[in-house]
Formats: sequence, structure tokens, C-alpha cells
Amino acid sequence: MKNIIIASTSTLHESGYLEYLLPELSVHFKNCKTILFIPYARPSGITHEEYTEKAALAFAKINIAVKGINEYEDPIDALQNAEGIFTGGGNTFLLVTQLYKNNVISTLSDVIKKGTPYLGTSAGSVICGLSMQNTNDMPIIYPPSFQTLGLIPFNINAHYLDPDTQSKHMGETRETRIKEFHSFNTIPVLGLREGSWLDVKGESITLKGNLKARLFKQNQIAIEIQTGSDLSYLK
Amino acid sequence: MKNIIIASTSTLHESGYLEYLLPELSVHFKNCKTILFIPYARPSGITHEEYTEKAALAFAKINIAVKGINEYEDPIDALQNAEGIFTGGGNTFLLVTQLYKNNVISTLSDVIKKGTPYLGTSAGSVICGLSMQNTNDMPIIYPPSFQTLGLIPFNINAHYLDPDTQSKHMGETRETRIKEFHSFNTIPVLGLREGSWLDVKGESITLKGNLKARLFKQNQIAIEIQTGSDLSYLK
Repeated sequence: MKNIIIASTSTLHESGYLEYLLPELSVHFKNCKTILFIPYARPSGITHEEYTEKAALAFAKINIAVKGINEYEDPIDALQNAEGIFTGGGNTFLLVTQLYKNNVISTLSDVIKKGTPYLGTSAGSVICGLSMQNTNDMPIIYPPSFQTLGLIPFNINAHYLDPDTQSKHMGETRETRIKEFHSFNTIPVLGLREGSWLDVKGESITLKGNLKARLFKQNQIAIEIQTGSDLSYLK
Repeated sequence: MKNIIIASTSTLHESGYLEYLLPELSVHFKNCKTILFIPYARPSGITHEEYTEKAALAFAKINIAVKGINEYEDPIDALQNAEGIFTGGGNTFLLVTQLYKNNVISTLSDVIKKGTPYLGTSAGSVICGLSMQNTNDMPIIYPPSFQTLGLIPFNINAHYLDPDTQSKHMGETRETRIKEFHSFNTIPVLGLREGSWLDVKGESITLKGNLKARLFKQNQIAIEIQTGSDLSYLK
């Protein structure tokens, strides 16, 4: 049975790394002494080791050890034997490229579908969707494919931002960008605001946190989704 | 001799489409009765025809006719015979995909290098660089390659935005994204603010407009470039 947390962000303004999620994570990973960390997204270009250390410092607060997938000779074996898995944020293009190049993308999907508890934040959440096509990231590397884990039947736009009505900037709003996606794609897109997450238990998908989320479907007006809503009907 | 305008944006806040550029364009395209428009980037998903009509309305003010490349049976022939060329903004992933799928990317590069006057705005400017890897756009379609026209020896970040020091949003700033690019790539990146453009005449590349631009190089602190500066030394 799937057991997944898909969080918009790792970090809230003026709060520590993963701090707002720790109460939830201590329940989510309650049967884990050690979790496997996937640091491939390398935020600001930090190394795998630096990023794993950052995750370890946060999880130490709930007495869970963290080991980077890069520390294993056989990453497929590491995934298959993991008690829990966390993929951190950073650059989605880099993360997806590394998942393909290290040949772990199908194993990662399989073990999560079989029930290994998973946490994704930001880019680590975007990959839970059908494709990475609603990332906000810059295409700093060319991935072999945009297809991702397909753990949920829609796509995620992390760090969702409402249009700034005061702005004089003419770059596209997030909503415009997602509408452009829907000129060519039928996949629904959930805009997850920072502080929101999805709690996936088997086939149920529940919006958690204090905020609403914004749901975009092709040829439909976007709607606000109340926290606590079940989104498993989407496809 | 190359004769190119590479503009950050088509439109300034509270101004009409291309309005701020029209005086410059009437000189740039002074020998053109008709220019060829490449509408492939389809902003907000509008059709090629709608987008061409929008460009035609703006160019009518300086007595230049506009014809969409989509109106020609043979787009390669259309490019080779164009008096001038304009590629409008929209989604860079879509624009690049269409340039490759219609097999026009090398011809477009060739005719501009041979001297056909060219205007790019936004996505149409991003493609003037070595690669499209500093676009801000959402990857709504998977292009065959990120490589672009290589008309200048660096990349463009259009609609460059300075960090908002008041923001509580935790998504990456533009500068952070470009720094992530430089963890893996050596190509310099010029952040062009809305209202700035590059004027390329042969091998000289001059920053125009009232604003400074921001130049990012690998392993170096970003610097501000004064308007009027020559950037042809970059590589």
C-alpha cells in the first residue's frame, strides 16, 4: 500500500529545514531507523555529501538516521532494502537526469508502489507526478525523458505562487504557464502552495496543511481545493 | 554581416505590444516591406494565425507587412527569401521543438548569420544563445535538443528579475537558478531586464535601453553591465 508525503517545499519562511513537517514525519517514518536519501537534485549545486548531511541534521531531531543513495555501490539494491526514502528538492532536470542515468527510476517507482514510505519535497515531489512538465526549474541539463514516477494520476506544480497583482513584470504568471501546458496536455496539475502537502495512503490522496491548493484541468477554469479534500478521483 | 535585435520582452508594463521598440525597429527593418514572423512559441497557447495577426498589427504602425512562416508550404524557402525575420515570445520549449520538427533551425541560423535582419523577443531572444537552458519557461513539451541558434557566444535569461527582498516565498531566485546552471555549464549567461536589448552588428554586441544587465559567469560573482557596453568579448 502506497504511503507517501508529497510536500510543496522543504522549508517555510523563517523556519528550519523540514521543521514544519517533522511532527508528520515522525509518524510517517515511525518504523524506520534509517532512511535512504536521494540528493540528486543538488540545490544551489551543493554536493551529494553536503546535501545528505543537511537532511541528516533535520532527521536527527526525530531520531532517524539518513544515508545517501550515492554511498551505495548498488543503488537499486539500496532502494529495494530501504526502510524509507526521501528525495530532496533542487533542480528537477538534474534530479530526473540522474534517476535515469543511474538506472533507478523504475525501481524507485516500484518500491514506493509496494509500500516503502516516501517523502518528496519540491523537485522530489514533482517526480511523483506523471511527468516533470510542471516544474518551475531551469533546464540546466537535458534529461533522457520528462516522464516521472507516476505515483499519483496527475502532475505537481510545487511552490505554487498566486499572480502578484502589484507587479509590473511582464514575464508569465504561474497560472499562464500551466495553461500553456494544457494547450498540449490533458494531465491535471495541482498547484501546491508552500506549507501544503499530499498524504497518499494506498489509493487515497488527501490535501494536508493549512492552505488551499489550486487545481488546473484542461479546458476548465482553475478551482481552489480545500485542505482535507480527497483528490483520488482525479485523472 | 549579422544585424540582430535581441530584446528581453515584447511588451513593457502599461504599454502596447512592441511599442517601446518601434522607433528602433523602423530603422532595423528599414529595407523591409514584409517581414517573416515565426509564431511557434504561441504565448498562452494562441494559434499561429492569432499570433501573426498580433505581430502584424504592431508592425503596421511602421508600415511593414508581416507574414507567418506557417503560411508557406516550404518554410526553408520562406526563410531564405525573407527580407527580415521576427520570432515572438511564448514558450521556449515549444518554440525550439517546432524549429527542430519543421527542420528550419539550421536555415534560420544560416540566414541570420548571412545578414537577414532579425528581431527576437523573449523566447525569440533566448534562442539566439548557444542553448535554451536559461529560459524561465515550463517544459510543456520535450524538445529534440536544448541547442539553439548560437548567434551570440553566450546565453540569454530574458525577463531577468532581481531577487525580491520582501518575499516570503522559498522558491529559488533567478540568480540561484543561473548559479545552478553554472554548476554544470561554462556558458556565460546575460540576464536582460525588461526594456533592455542587445544590438548585434557583425561581431559587435551592444547593450541598449535604459537599464543595466546582469552578467553571470561560472565561478565568478555576477556583475552589472552598463547600457552601451560592448559584450563581444564574452565567451
